[in-house]
Amino acid sequence: MREFQLIEKFFKPLTKSCEASQNLTDDVAKISLKKDEELVISKDVFVEDVHFLREDGGFKIASKLLRTNLSDLAASGATPLYYMLGFSKNKHVDEEFCSEFAQGLKSVQDEFGLCLIGGDTVSAKKLFFSITIFGSVKKGKTLSRNQAKDGDLIFVSGSIGDAFLGRKTAFDRHVIARHFFPTPRINLGKKLLENNLSKCAIDVSDGLLADLRHICEASKLDAEIYSQKIPLSKSAQKFFETNSKIKLTDLISGGDDYELIFAVNPRDRKKIAELSKSLKLDITCIGEFNKSADKKFQITLQDEKNTKINIKKFGHEH
Amino acid sequence: MREFQLIEKFFKPLTKSCEASQNLTDDVAKISLKKDEELVISKDVFVEDVHFLREDGGFKIASKLLRTNLSDLAASGATPLYYMLGFSKNKHVDEEFCSEFAQGLKSVQDEFGLCLIGGDTVSAKKLFFSITIFGSVKKGKTLSRNQAKDGDLIFVSGSIGDAFLGRKTAFDRHVIARHFFPTPRINLGKKLLENNLSKCAIDVSDGLLADLRHICEASKLDAEIYSQKIPLSKSAQKFFETNSKIKLTDLISGGDDYELIFAVNPRDRKKIAELSKSLKLDITCIGEFNKSADKKFQITLQDEKNTKINIKKFGHEH
Repeated sequence: MREFQLIEKFFKPLTKSCEASQNLTDDVAKISLKKDEELVISKDVFVEDVHFLREDGGFKIASKLLRTNLSDLAASGATPLYYMLGFSKNKHVDEEFCSEFAQGLKSVQDEFGLCLIGGDTVSAKKLFFSITIFGSVKKGKTLSRNQAKDGDLIFVSGSIGDAFLGRKTAFDRHVIARHFFPTPRINLGKKLLENNLSKCAIDVSDGLLADLRHICEASKLDAEIYSQKIPLSKSAQKFFETNSKIKLTDLISGGDDYELIFAVNPRDRKKIAELSKSLKLDITCIGEFNKSADKKFQITLQDEKNTKINIKKFGHEH
Repeated sequence: MREFQLIEKFFKPLTKSCEASQNLTDDVAKISLKKDEELVISKDVFVEDVHFLREDGGFKIASKLLRTNLSDLAASGATPLYYMLGFSKNKHVDEEFCSEFAQGLKSVQDEFGLCLIGGDTVSAKKLFFSITIFGSVKKGKTLSRNQAKDGDLIFVSGSIGDAFLGRKTAFDRHVIARHFFPTPRINLGKKLLENNLSKCAIDVSDGLLADLRHICEASKLDAEIYSQKIPLSKSAQKFFETNSKIKLTDLISGGDDYELIFAVNPRDRKKIAELSKSLKLDITCIGEFNKSADKKFQITLQDEKNTKINIKKFGHEH
């Protein structure tokens, strides 16, 4: 399939004729902002046989790519606006693959309200896809990693470990869906900012422990978390109880959850419970941040008997 | 080399600690604009064995990637601000390659005044690199492809065909440099806009004829160009005169020139000559745009005897 046809048939409809895309007729896209806004941008690259298999098909590959990239916006509290696409093709990228890929993008666009504004298509032996995503926040108001304070509670949205299990099984629909179609917590990020409930968040891509450690290092704090408080889905609980090979530490270092970890002042605990209700999203307190005496900015994981669990693995390298 | 070290050692210095980069500690970058500005964005991807050879080395690969991406900003008249980098690595990407790659980026940054604000690093068997580049223009003021008018003169900057020759020879320093280190015509693009000398430009990446055709299609015009007016460098003239295998049509469909083609009202011809002088850059009138009677939006190429030259090839597919 030639570049021109590919763009005309599959990518142009994804622009929804928005002005920023200039109908994909120029090499550049254009973005205007309201005067009290700033732009938040993230870039992600997915590589064949590293982040996806070609056999996954265009729909799943495109969905996951855009969903995980949206998760970066969620962690900064931004409202999604636009994205640009780097698309590679080779002899395996036929009309069916392109059509599924475009449908995957469209389904995520429709769910989160954004549109395609440009990009580049290239030929490559091994496939890869790249997205640059754009969102907006009020000027000077973003969630970031370095804003946790001593004594803040550590909250996490949704449940942890499903995506790890989704990579391991072909039999549980819930965990497989969580692996291929993670839910970027856009509304949660926005509400945390709007309601001044948090200034500090990160999304769980590498693993609960690995990403929590990023906050600890950036905010120069220790973290203490309680293993029994870590939220598991019913599917994950079942796996965990029936399969002695799977350990809790696998789930919390497995990554790909795309839930938000965020820091909250204890006085706002009630407001978080209310937010959880209004968003119909589980939000769980799993521990707290503390001053770091030795400046090692480390995480302590305790079990229900207050025994320290030795952490051997923090995260999953893609 | 691990991701963290790679970023710390080679990429962090390229941010020049600018605020937008957030010191590369978050997954997102942030851009603010002045209230009368809008953002112009372009995304380019380079693939091993398609756009570059690994043996070219990091310096040349990075330089050309950033320079060609800057050329998209030049063609829209934008001032370069920032870029994000998608960086792939494998066992061949050693410390030396990374160091050279970073030096390549730095040399272009220093020349055009921009800095790195974020990106992603991944592993890949075949290497590829991707850049998303950001520039600013006054709101509603950009050069674009669809603004040429009937009767406008067609100008082109610099010289055409050197990069094509640079791919063919190992003996002429000028054309090899033009192939690896194209010069994005940033100042020309900005001046055309500032001085209201043009509203329509494109950069020559696919080939003089192919890119001129993009303007014709977008502006719904025909173009007439005169072969003897097409500016050739001294090196190219020498090749052309001494090598009967090389035809003018090779040079004007060879691509990779990264010069600007732009449309100018004939009344501004003198001002273009003055601009050429002040920028110390050759700018040559090679023809004109005309109403398209049959709506085929085609290019006619004439030789010095006003004989029509048959065009078989318009551009070079990378």
